[in-house]
Amino acid sequence: MQRIPAEVDTPDVLIDRDVLERNVERMAAAVRERGLQLRPHAKTHKVPEIAALQLAAGAAGLTVATLGEAEVFAAHGAGDLFVAYPLWVGPRQAERLRRLSAAARISVGVDSAEAAAAMGGQLGDAAEDIAVLVEIDSGHHRSGVHPDAAADVARAAARAGLRVEGVFTFPGHSYAPGMPVEAAAQEQQALDRAAGQLEAAGFAVRRRSGGSTPSALLTDSTAATEVRPGVYVFGDAQQLELGRCALEDIALTVAATVVSRHEGGTADGDGVPRRVVLDAGSKVLGSDRPAWATGYGRLMDHPDARITALSEHHATVVWPADAPLPALGERLRVIPNHVCLTMNLVDDVAVVRGGTLLERWTVAARGRNS
Amino acid sequence: MQRIPAEVDTPDVLIDRDVLERNVERMAAAVRERGLQLRPHAKTHKVPEIAALQLAAGAAGLTVATLGEAEVFAAHGAGDLFVAYPLWVGPRQAERLRRLSAAARISVGVDSAEAAAAMGGQLGDAAEDIAVLVEIDSGHHRSGVHPDAAADVARAAARAGLRVEGVFTFPGHSYAPGMPVEAAAQEQQALDRAAGQLEAAGFAVRRRSGGSTPSALLTDSTAATEVRPGVYVFGDAQQLELGRCALEDIALTVAATVVSRHEGGTADGDGVPRRVVLDAGSKVLGSDRPAWATGYGRLMDHPDARITALSEHHATVVWPADAPLPALGERLRVIPNHVCLTMNLVDDVAVVRGGTLLERWTVAARGRNS
Repeated sequence: MQRIPAEVDTPDVLIDRDVLERNVERMAAAVRERGLQLRPHAKTHKVPEIAALQLAAGAAGLTVATLGEAEVFAAHGAGDLFVAYPLWVGPRQAERLRRLSAAARISVGVDSAEAAAAMGGQLGDAAEDIAVLVEIDSGHHRSGVHPDAAADVARAAARAGLRVEGVFTFPGHSYAPGMPVEAAAQEQQALDRAAGQLEAAGFAVRRRSGGSTPSALLTDSTAATEVRPGVYVFGDAQQLELGRCALEDIALTVAATVVSRHEGGTADGDGVPRRVVLDAGSKVLGSDRPAWATGYGRLMDHPDARITALSEHHATVVWPADAPLPALGERLRVIPNHVCLTMNLVDDVAVVRGGTLLERWTVAARGRNS
Repeated sequence: MQRIPAEVDTPDVLIDRDVLERNVERMAAAVRERGLQLRPHAKTHKVPEIAALQLAAGAAGLTVATLGEAEVFAAHGAGDLFVAYPLWVGPRQAERLRRLSAAARISVGVDSAEAAAAMGGQLGDAAEDIAVLVEIDSGHHRSGVHPDAAADVARAAARAGLRVEGVFTFPGHSYAPGMPVEAAAQEQQALDRAAGQLEAAGFAVRRRSGGSTPSALLTDSTAATEVRPGVYVFGDAQQLELGRCALEDIALTVAATVVSRHEGGTADGDGVPRRVVLDAGSKVLGSDRPAWATGYGRLMDHPDARITALSEHHATVVWPADAPLPALGERLRVIPNHVCLTMNLVDDVAVVRGGTLLERWTVAARGRNS
């Protein structure tokens, strides 16, 4: 099953165009059916061509993580951008926000009175051009305030001259086996409670924003107005092992070559595993490995092989005892554990259909960490 | 203790020029004293200016992991490059090797008769311009053959027209507590045994190459002729926790801002940790986290703080109970777990002395995975 175009040198990132389009359309339809708006997280792909597909399928806007990502997508014509992050705004960030708000509708996150005051103070008269959503902790315990503290932050934002538009949360604890349903329920309760607090304090709550990829389709319009999944465009080994996508939904793989091959046992010494080594390591796959994962990614055409170790340019793959080891030089496709990291490691990607290379897309927002 | 220049926006990578130079010189002197040659691994930094410092301090050449890295450093004048990797060579790789060998002295790794035959076949008459070192498994069980199989691989390389120059190994299992001494001993035994096999088969063994950063200074000239440490130029949280460098040897930190702050306890809900969140996540720090590490990196000026979770743009830092939480907007320096990943995530770095920005260096070989 050779589906790696001959022109591709390994390691390289392959995007299956048909699967990508199907993923984009399916999520758009499913979210629409639930009466929600879709604001996909563009940090996953960082590619203007993919953002254009999402917007054409009806996305209300894009979510980004940094001002740098917002600048890239605004320059490519995105008209509505949500920086879903508790920004700390100094003079340079304020100037960038002013320029961004001249090009697109901009909303940002805030999770403290101090950050709201700093942002409003730095923006001055431009504060009214920036909408803010108060970030709520719905159980992930990263950033975000308790729902009962949301009104205090909203009041501080209003005092700072910012336009309070609603609340948002990221149910990151949905990325664990058995957690999506519980995390989605906590997400909805937290949004509901925080929105109630804001309304009681006199704010009109226009946006209640939630939804990781695992929880997006478990969210409904009783508590949220929009969802922000990102990974769904490609799928990855984490989503696969969580049961949130199937093998045929995987749109992104890393093409790799078998560079070392060891039958193990007597010839190699005691305790030496039967394995192959691929030329795709942590510098292209990323090294996220949740405790519950089977390894550092999966092989597309060999579901029982296990990636037991990853170094920068090597993936060590322990092979099923009953299957022949692949040959040296053979090219295999690896499904990374976390596609957001993979896309941030390459300057461009190969867009393929079947075994044919269609074109290359530039990862325009790669490395825009600030 | 503010040592982050005001011009720097976070997250950003800071290189302390004085500490870097001291690290470069100290390793050069220590390796020279042992009667070994130093061939530092440039995959760690990917920066021509740092390679120039290493060569000026007496390095015999550079080690790289990929042809792409070799091309970058050759273009910047490096005259002796060892691709310490079991390359699988097709027509395009052969053409690149031919061009490289016109610009610099090139040696590469090989760990199978098949790869040697492929390489020699593709290179044709140019094979004699390429030196090969047989890769030996000294206990890390990644790539490399058992020392007793080294002569078979060498004979295949010679049959393919390649110039056999010696043996090399990477004692990657030295990166664990208590392991450096044992791994260095295994490394020397493996090199010694493999070199003996090659000599018995009639090969002149000119190079025996070993040495990770943890084991480099435990290696001596009885078994090795050269060492290839990389991380020593910067140090990182892994080396610190392994006791292979001290806090004052850390030359690379990531400047980060406190963007979220939570006292924990009653106000935040039961079981919610007392923490701050920094704007440096896995997309700048890298997400390597060995099981023995205290977390996802360390804070330079707060050794008791623990980075308990990392997402793409957030580091969650649980703070010591007896110390006040830093303020929102405060800027802190994070020591990444693994600097090689950090350098591969940024396009350039800030070179600093004390709190002053001296210049920026381009990470010229970033992303050169193939």
